[in-house]
Amino acid sequence: MKIIVDCFGGDKSPSANVEGAVLALKEHNDLSLILTGDEALIKAELDRLSYGGDRVEIVHAPDVITGEDKPTDAIRLKRESSMVKAVIMLKKEQDIAGLVSTGATGALITAATVRIGRIRGIRRPAFCPVLPTMNGGIVGICDSGANVDITPDMLLHQAILGSAYLKNVYGVKSPRVAMLNIGTESEKGDDLRKTAYPMLKACDSIDFVGNMESRDLLSGKYDLVVCDGFSGNVLVKTTEGTALELLKKLKKDIYSKTVYKLGALLMKKMFMEEKEFMNYHNYGGSVLLGCEKTIVKGHGSSDANAVKICIDQAYRMSSGAMYKEVEEALAKIDQ
Amino acid sequence: MKIIVDCFGGDKSPSANVEGAVLALKEHNDLSLILTGDEALIKAELDRLSYGGDRVEIVHAPDVITGEDKPTDAIRLKRESSMVKAVIMLKKEQDIAGLVSTGATGALITAATVRIGRIRGIRRPAFCPVLPTMNGGIVGICDSGANVDITPDMLLHQAILGSAYLKNVYGVKSPRVAMLNIGTESEKGDDLRKTAYPMLKACDSIDFVGNMESRDLLSGKYDLVVCDGFSGNVLVKTTEGTALELLKKLKKDIYSKTVYKLGALLMKKMFMEEKEFMNYHNYGGSVLLGCEKTIVKGHGSSDANAVKICIDQAYRMSSGAMYKEVEEALAKIDQ
Repeated sequence: MKIIVDCFGGDKSPSANVEGAVLALKEHNDLSLILTGDEALIKAELDRLSYGGDRVEIVHAPDVITGEDKPTDAIRLKRESSMVKAVIMLKKEQDIAGLVSTGATGALITAATVRIGRIRGIRRPAFCPVLPTMNGGIVGICDSGANVDITPDMLLHQAILGSAYLKNVYGVKSPRVAMLNIGTESEKGDDLRKTAYPMLKACDSIDFVGNMESRDLLSGKYDLVVCDGFSGNVLVKTTEGTALELLKKLKKDIYSKTVYKLGALLMKKMFMEEKEFMNYHNYGGSVLLGCEKTIVKGHGSSDANAVKICIDQAYRMSSGAMYKEVEEALAKIDQ
Repeated sequence: MKIIVDCFGGDKSPSANVEGAVLALKEHNDLSLILTGDEALIKAELDRLSYGGDRVEIVHAPDVITGEDKPTDAIRLKRESSMVKAVIMLKKEQDIAGLVSTGATGALITAATVRIGRIRGIRRPAFCPVLPTMNGGIVGICDSGANVDITPDMLLHQAILGSAYLKNVYGVKSPRVAMLNIGTESEKGDDLRKTAYPMLKACDSIDFVGNMESRDLLSGKYDLVVCDGFSGNVLVKTTEGTALELLKKLKKDIYSKTVYKLGALLMKKMFMEEKEFMNYHNYGGSVLLGCEKTIVKGHGSSDANAVKICIDQAYRMSSGAMYKEVEEALAKIDQ
């Protein structure tokens, strides 16, 4: 299994990306990695980590795409960037299964759309991050921001893609799929939701359980939520933001009184666990579903462990079973 | 100041509604209330509370609109319901300034739209709940679910209405208005957001500070967020849902070990305060802005104190200054 890691563009790149790569290699014996970016800097990181194996290839790419670059311009003009070089290799070379990047989101979507083919029948790729639920499980959200204007058939595609992803990468047997809406009744929402509802209901390849109100996202009652990229983006970022702000507030309040500090000392292990539980880095990157090859977008703030988890996701996605399942489901709705 | 309280339709009605009414009367000496609903039941509640004042009038309405009723049918057919009677009186009687209801949301919007006139220039009324921010302030969200399909000028109207509301009811001097978007850059989002951005920027009557990502809602950097009703609904319910789920998880984890229970005992007062801080009942109902008269929609689960706060909101909204400010701002953009 060969995967490319774009080593530049994230806040902690290249060190986090190179270290994450080395961690992933330790875990998977049949994995080899191509690292794109400034060769000297990547080499220095590998030396720092005393990596002596032969499963790493460096492809020199001196340029970096940043969040300030306009995606379409960046893809066209920054051909020597670590991201564009990685995407072009992913497209060209048959034996490369997937790509992990912590670089600019807009540029990555554009590059993937322009350079990498889509699965036959899929109109637009969609992001699918996962969040932890309160009963110890996970929930996938598709789409979380790739497409702000969508059509009912795209919601159906997202349900098919997301279900296959959760089955094959997370081992969820029969993912319960819900549609994000402003109420649970079938007639709720705008025209998009009203048209999509019966289409989702009629699809045999997924287990559609109805509408979900956003307050139930973490309840554990759903495995996958499909939504347009705008409200999906709001859903994911509000959840992450609220959790972070509440933790910050708790911490501040604990420090306000000695007796609270004392109490918190007894609960130190628990608070550490809560913090880890809410650390979205632990749940991997946002995969871009619908492309012919695997693309995983890690958080810009990814540390080495987060990058390692992203590579792990790409590894599990690229087994082939997921793609086969998606093709079969799409063939069925075409009939 | 005369306000109507619809005493039926909420989970704890009529007792919570009648008790909330009595609490509000104690606070405002110049307030009188009209309570609509089953007369005998309301009287029994007033007796239970030993209310002996003369500032309450009961208008008998034996029927109740529930969440199961189709809004348009309910408004047309359930003319003897506590909600419809209240709305008709609000429209007809000049001296009644506002209405508080904990009944079905859909029916209330429909009744308000059909029966109560809109402020001249406003196309659709919009909900504006407030949430607490982590620095001890509040943030208003307009719209949170009245209109799922909207136009750029409606976003501008919501900014004007919400600003006037926050100024006059919460004393926010110059509310910082943001537009909910999937990124902070001015060119982010769909056509709706791209068209609305320069319109908001050009309006002198509001202090538009740019786009806001949903993760910053509770940061305290914004006083008002304008959005379409779909994503606004997701924003509010995700925030409430995440906070509730996290508190539940904390509680469960505390009970899992004796040492944690001990620690939590020392922090009991703090945890009680956090719980109160996150209790959205403390922040009042969702006002329906844009109507000629004041309408406050309390949560269906409102207790007496929550109803009292809703009446208090209606009291402060109905002073007249808010409406004058809105009219002036609308006149300016018409020029």
